[in-house]
Amino acid sequence: MGKVTFNITMSLDGYSAGPNPRADEPLGDGGERLHEWALRSAAWRETHGYEDGAEDRNSEIVRESTANVGAYLMGRKMFDGGEGPLDESWHGWWGENPPYGVPVFVLTHHEREPLEMQGGTTFEFVNDGIEPALERARAAAGERDVVIAGGADVAQQYLRAGLVDEFQVSVAPILLGGGVRLLDGLGNDEIALEADRAVHTPEATHLRYRVVR
Amino acid sequence: MGKVTFNITMSLDGYSAGPNPRADEPLGDGGERLHEWALRSAAWRETHGYEDGAEDRNSEIVRESTANVGAYLMGRKMFDGGEGPLDESWHGWWGENPPYGVPVFVLTHHEREPLEMQGGTTFEFVNDGIEPALERARAAAGERDVVIAGGADVAQQYLRAGLVDEFQVSVAPILLGGGVRLLDGLGNDEIALEADRAVHTPEATHLRYRVVR
Repeated sequence: MGKVTFNITMSLDGYSAGPNPRADEPLGDGGERLHEWALRSAAWRETHGYEDGAEDRNSEIVRESTANVGAYLMGRKMFDGGEGPLDESWHGWWGENPPYGVPVFVLTHHEREPLEMQGGTTFEFVNDGIEPALERARAAAGERDVVIAGGADVAQQYLRAGLVDEFQVSVAPILLGGGVRLLDGLGNDEIALEADRAVHTPEATHLRYRVVR
Repeated sequence: MGKVTFNITMSLDGYSAGPNPRADEPLGDGGERLHEWALRSAAWRETHGYEDGAEDRNSEIVRESTANVGAYLMGRKMFDGGEGPLDESWHGWWGENPPYGVPVFVLTHHEREPLEMQGGTTFEFVNDGIEPALERARAAAGERDVVIAGGADVAQQYLRAGLVDEFQVSVAPILLGGGVRLLDGLGNDEIALEADRAVHTPEATHLRYRVVR
């Protein structure tokens, strides 16, 4: 069985999105700077149809994080940004060939038929909670990993439930001064971590943790 | 002229002290785990009169942080934990030979005569704000560095005022779930950072940042 993991970028002051998130700027004020390290990498740009990315240590980090993924879990907000019933005509933000290439299980209270995209990506909508969603993702992933694609609140729910094996926090060298906290309300002693590795680049320092059971 | 720096340990969720700080546990619930990486090091234990410390990478980090220090700045709470007029009989928490060995400038609204300890440590009480305190510390330090010894609020004040050159955040692999945030209210764009270095150990990952002017 593969691992359950997530990769999230936070600012040095602990935010995974800046203040005032809104429809046209879901990452809030200054939040787009969080992901610069990834967005300029060859690995990210390839999967999004560009050939001009930097082949650097950050690119290796992106490649590693997608190398062994058998299924993704995703919060509903990340899928369409909305609330209430799902819009059957919405196919996601990623075009007809999304950068996932495997089944994506979207956590939502609302029902919708599965959506089949190009390149192996399917979106399936799960209504019965985080544990059944994980079971379905595991079944789809087989021996490969299940990755929680986001948002931060979904990663937190799985972490709090003791269902995460490993995660990576990429610390961007910026201060956002407000916004969505990546790791709020998770302590105190319930979750024990092992600091597994740190990979430093000027654009971000990638800290990997194993959850100790 | 030396640099102005500080070194602070925070939990992965961004706290430099746990919830419920109190007189007999100023670091709050679980907060003592923050500093385990330092407290077991040979470098720290030597300066506190013990000979049984670990001579490891964390010890080198402690040594480096004290190697070129000409003066310290310190918040009043760190000096005596109190408020209101200063108790003239209080000589600090550190015994008669404190681990500083250079002048320490204590920021307080209250007056007190300088206090001369053994081993080169003096405590001088500065009443006219963070900038005059820094000027006095710089004059005492000469070519050497001025280090902000703490607490987090004092480090924040200097950072916000643009007076810090470099700082190191040691990230302990723990979640505290509440407490005092190390870097609260500092964003958004006013403080630009350069991620200078990361030193990883299982006990803490030491991230060094240069403030860009």
